[in-house]
Amino acid sequence: MDRSKQDENKVGYDSEPQDEAPDGAAATGLRARKLLSEAQEREVRELRSSRYETRRTTVEALEEVLFEPIPVLDHGFVRVVDYMGDDAAITQAARVSYGRGTKKLREDSGLIRYLLRHRHTTPFEMCEIKFHIKLPIFVARQWIRHRTANVNEYSARYSVLDREFYIPAPEHLAAQSASNRQGRGDVLEGEEAAEVLETLKQGAARAYGEYERMLNQDEEGNPQDPERQGLARELARISLPINVYTQWYWKVDLHNLMHFLSLRADPHAQYEIRAYAEVMVDILKRWVPITHQAFEDYVAGATGLSAPAMALIKRMLAGETVEQETSGLSAREWRELMEQLDRQ
Amino acid sequence: MDRSKQDENKVGYDSEPQDEAPDGAAATGLRARKLLSEAQEREVRELRSSRYETRRTTVEALEEVLFEPIPVLDHGFVRVVDYMGDDAAITQAARVSYGRGTKKLREDSGLIRYLLRHRHTTPFEMCEIKFHIKLPIFVARQWIRHRTANVNEYSARYSVLDREFYIPAPEHLAAQSASNRQGRGDVLEGEEAAEVLETLKQGAARAYGEYERMLNQDEEGNPQDPERQGLARELARISLPINVYTQWYWKVDLHNLMHFLSLRADPHAQYEIRAYAEVMVDILKRWVPITHQAFEDYVAGATGLSAPAMALIKRMLAGETVEQETSGLSAREWRELMEQLDRQ
Amino acid sequence: MDRSKQDENKVGYDSEPQDEAPDGAAATGLRARKLLSEAQEREVRELRSSRYETRRTTVEALEEVLFEPIPVLDHGFVRVVDYMGDDAAITQAARVSYGRGTKKLREDSGLIRYLLRHRHTTPFEMCEIKFHIKLPIFVARQWIRHRTANVNEYSARYSVLDREFYIPAPEHLAAQSASNRQGRGDVLEGEEAAEVLETLKQGAARAYGEYERMLNQDEEGNPQDPERQGLARELARISLPINVYTQWYWKVDLHNLMHFLSLRADPHAQYEIRAYAEVMVDILKRWVPITHQAFEDYVAGATGLSAPAMALIKRMLAGETVEQETSGLSAREWRELMEQLDRQ
Amino acid sequence: MDRSKQDENKVGYDSEPQDEAPDGAAATGLRARKLLSEAQEREVRELRSSRYETRRTTVEALEEVLFEPIPVLDHGFVRVVDYMGDDAAITQAARVSYGRGTKKLREDSGLIRYLLRHRHTTPFEMCEIKFHIKLPIFVARQWIRHRTANVNEYSARYSVLDREFYIPAPEHLAAQSASNRQGRGDVLEGEEAAEVLETLKQGAARAYGEYERMLNQDEEGNPQDPERQGLARELARISLPINVYTQWYWKVDLHNLMHFLSLRADPHAQYEIRAYAEVMVDILKRWVPITHQAFEDYVAGATGLSAPAMALIKRMLAGETVEQETSGLSAREWRELMEQLDRQ
Repeated sequence: MDRSKQDENKVGYDSEPQDEAPDGAAATGLRARKLLSEAQEREVRELRSSRYETRRTTVEALEEVLFEPIPVLDHGFVRVVDYMGDDAAITQAARVSYGRGTKKLREDSGLIRYLLRHRHTTPFEMCEIKFHIKLPIFVARQWIRHRTANVNEYSARYSVLDREFYIPAPEHLAAQSASNRQGRGDVLEGEEAAEVLETLKQGAARAYGEYERMLNQDEEGNPQDPERQGLARELARISLPINVYTQWYWKVDLHNLMHFLSLRADPHAQYEIRAYAEVMVDILKRWVPITHQAFEDYVAGATGLSAPAMALIKRMLAGETVEQETSGLSAREWRELMEQLDRQ
Repeated sequence: MDRSKQDENKVGYDSEPQDEAPDGAAATGLRARKLLSEAQEREVRELRSSRYETRRTTVEALEEVLFEPIPVLDHGFVRVVDYMGDDAAITQAARVSYGRGTKKLREDSGLIRYLLRHRHTTPFEMCEIKFHIKLPIFVARQWIRHRTANVNEYSARYSVLDREFYIPAPEHLAAQSASNRQGRGDVLEGEEAAEVLETLKQGAARAYGEYERMLNQDEEGNPQDPERQGLARELARISLPINVYTQWYWKVDLHNLMHFLSLRADPHAQYEIRAYAEVMVDILKRWVPITHQAFEDYVAGATGLSAPAMALIKRMLAGETVEQETSGLSAREWRELMEQLDRQ
Repeated sequence: MDRSKQDENKVGYDSEPQDEAPDGAAATGLRARKLLSEAQEREVRELRSSRYETRRTTVEALEEVLFEPIPVLDHGFVRVVDYMGDDAAITQAARVSYGRGTKKLREDSGLIRYLLRHRHTTPFEMCEIKFHIKLPIFVARQWIRHRTANVNEYSARYSVLDREFYIPAPEHLAAQSASNRQGRGDVLEGEEAAEVLETLKQGAARAYGEYERMLNQDEEGNPQDPERQGLARELARISLPINVYTQWYWKVDLHNLMHFLSLRADPHAQYEIRAYAEVMVDILKRWVPITHQAFEDYVAGATGLSAPAMALIKRMLAGETVEQETSGLSAREWRELMEQLDRQ
Repeated sequence: MDRSKQDENKVGYDSEPQDEAPDGAAATGLRARKLLSEAQEREVRELRSSRYETRRTTVEALEEVLFEPIPVLDHGFVRVVDYMGDDAAITQAARVSYGRGTKKLREDSGLIRYLLRHRHTTPFEMCEIKFHIKLPIFVARQWIRHRTANVNEYSARYSVLDREFYIPAPEHLAAQSASNRQGRGDVLEGEEAAEVLETLKQGAARAYGEYERMLNQDEEGNPQDPERQGLARELARISLPINVYTQWYWKVDLHNLMHFLSLRADPHAQYEIRAYAEVMVDILKRWVPITHQAFEDYVAGATGLSAPAMALIKRMLAGETVEQETSGLSAREWRELMEQLDRQ
């Protein structure tokens, strides 16, 4: 693959087509070469090769992927960098116990499911996880709306951003939905798709070129022109598009993580943030498998029914034939309910 | 003003120098013509002309500017849209009183100053203010890091963004600081300045043109080309640069507002967010004048001295001649202290 | 009614039997004489008689009860002391609009119901309310667990607490539930009830007497014994029981208020905090009637169904006869579901 | 030790002087006999004897005391039950680095001190610690005001509270301060001290006896009287005094822990909560020694000087003789400043 082709693909140096990447797969080390620089890879390898002795609760399945970048989108990743607690830590806190809190697996499981079903959320706050995440700015802007978390973001006032931009894969280049003002419709095809893709790629490449030019800096960090001063980093970056990648450390407790996942792994979330959330649901499963199952049953897969909707279901179960007009539901609520019941 | 002229005004081709605008001035309605569309102006006028009777604490000086957009930067503004409480509400809460809480102005003032000086912050949380703010995305990203606030942002998934981009005035086009990795140095001049300005303006204009093209939408919201579907809004926007303007409702309590202002009206903050913070300090003064003065004395203008620095000052006051080497301070701390004491 | 009887009733000076009080009734001024001292009543009257002119959103129905203490339990109350926003402020923020945000009542209502149904909670954070509440310490301890609120509590380090203790009305003196470890069963009767009531009354009276004795202070605040110094207030109070009344200012946004009410007006909440929550639901109705109705339909009255429960309902609607054994639900979940469907 | 002796030990009849206890000492297991039941001790021993292998950052000095109850006051304790991160995790997050974040110890130390000095607090949020704490209710009520933390408290609705009450040691039985409405003065002596102590002890013993009587439960949890039903636990507890011990799991990030400690290890805090804070400062030192030193220098030991105070110091350093009248400070502020400068 020649160099000019690379530039198109990545506004940079990606040697393989994006859709070959095992998106959201368990961390296998595949693609690590592409995600990280050599120096970064070395750092991760060093971290992963260390072992310490601890008295703390330890989760084998999560340790396996610790520090490993799991690829998301074309240049992003999710890395677990630390964690505190496990399923048993939830029951331990719920019981305010002196010991491990585990009685029997079956009792723990029953208690965890009971707690989540009945919105006793505080014991889930007793587990904590810390991620290192690489993500486009427009995804970061949706993400940061979840306020109950700790964040340290890479500073583009302090450092120069990498030449990495999110370019959607062709199958994600969707038209505006006609029915949902806030969603996608069919995938674009033919010439329109090609032109949009080209626009995004060239726009990113051009913006990064101008960024370097304004900074008066080349790829090695040397001045492009010794006569120029270079614009302040905090200003030069303002012309970069919001699909440029940034990165941050993000730390959150298990309750708030599940709240985040329930909203962001949902079909109504924008595809790009959902791609991250789905990888994190897999991590949730490794970390706290009992809680993960309860999450799937009572949170992600749950249906909230209004008082009038529930009254209607009881009438239906009693054999009554019901109509929207006499249901007490608005047309929109009726339609939503019938969809929930697979009746439409 | 003809249509083509307007467009120039918007995408950064600002035909009038920015510094003619009464930046941060009390809202006088000047420039409102440029800040708001006619329909928006009409809405604001209507709001401002209504009067209601209330039993609630009311602040005359703040009512004067209520709903009025106060210009910031080239296309941004700050508008107060609602507020709760005044200086007396702070002492009322501190005393958990049944009545207004005001004894005498002098006592209230003494108590407010005491509370702020000694970090008794909860009574200040009893006042609340709500703003409507128009600001560039890169400023919004710094702003949102303040988590103890309520936010509703304009959705670029749901609606099309306006053709408005922040282009720095020439006097703010600064070079990277040589001494401070996170700051600005001298103002750029001559050809470099001209080129940077042109790059920013053209980059914004081009990005907005491509945005409309990908949306397949013209200025009136009609399809540019009936054969194309148009890219989903949530995707088309990803190529817009981070100096595009967004807007939000932002609501915060007085304690957290002062924390925000202490960090963002500070000389270390990036100029662009500082421009907003400074306007908001003026609003603070209108709203809670006693608290504002205490804020200036004990928060914004305060100096934090470490234990070793304080020990050193005592030695200096005792007439001793001190040196960095024997001061117990690092070279950097020593330099910072000497600056604080105007000794350098 | 003779004086000794009074003492029993109130561990103090309540002249009328507690159960005549219009518990949770709309604020009518009834009982105000009993809730407040004369000086406090005067302060409230003064506040209520003032009128100001404002440009802010004003809610007539809430202004009516502003500052008025609404009785709860035997000596407690809820008073609204300030508020910000109304139903229209929610849609105004959701639309990030320049004007009032109200289009037509019908559109506003549809949007508010949509937002609440689909967990778009941030626009509800744009309304704020501030209460002055008098409540027993054990209720305050449950209440304070709601962290997203602002609180200023009366300080028993700084001031002497009033001689007011919560003594349950006879109909609320319940036995421990046999089936629910965290609930009440039948109402106690006969001698056991009488003894418990007597124990609580005398315990409170004795504790307050000892409190005053340790403080070396009589009812007028004078020393009981000039020879003694009196124990520090912050220590003397440690022997007071947790049914002693305290008071605080509590300020919260509408979203977090509804979350509080959904948990505390729920039948699983302890009766005493529920008594407060129910009064506050009435206030919610005065303040934001559209939101209140949506709250009743989609939050308070809503049912959350797990994925397996929903699957089961679909099978039942298809005419299938289902059994717990083959339902995929645990015995407990099955029982809960059948109760939700009124099938048991 | 016979049973009756134990009981005395618990309800305040502490037969051994409290100050023999290694208050705040490193956890040595001393007094564990008195703090924990045998079953609890067994649980802790088991936890402490387990070892796991982990890739996570591990802190040797903190592992040493993990799970060990460190005694505070007469029946309370602090136990670290889990932690995440160390000093290096702070710099790792500040640099958003791929590896451990540690360059050289000296660089890390400089960066940590710089971050804390300049209020860059978010990197400190990247460390987390979880405690199990036993504390009197009145201390818990001050503690819980710190909202940015996770809490699970022992439920007295669900379970019966232990017969443990805080009774101050004689040297902490202080009179009300004459100068500070919110503080303690001289230690009480002679008959007054003896009477107060007796009042507190007997009050606690009596309240616990009545609690058991109302619950209709003896020490083994059996009914005292088969004819009675027993009052619901959630009601019986309302007559217990606020010096009864409760316990909770409390989890907090390092930034908020330091904020808590700066307020609660301060001389203005009530002695009893300060006793806990001081033990936790020792734990801070074990966990993150560099941050602990920076905390001592820049937070706990720091002085905040107002703008007018700083101006005055500059005049003093310039050799000027200053007076309160011409200082621009109020009499109170002048007094506070002179105290800070050891001039009074």
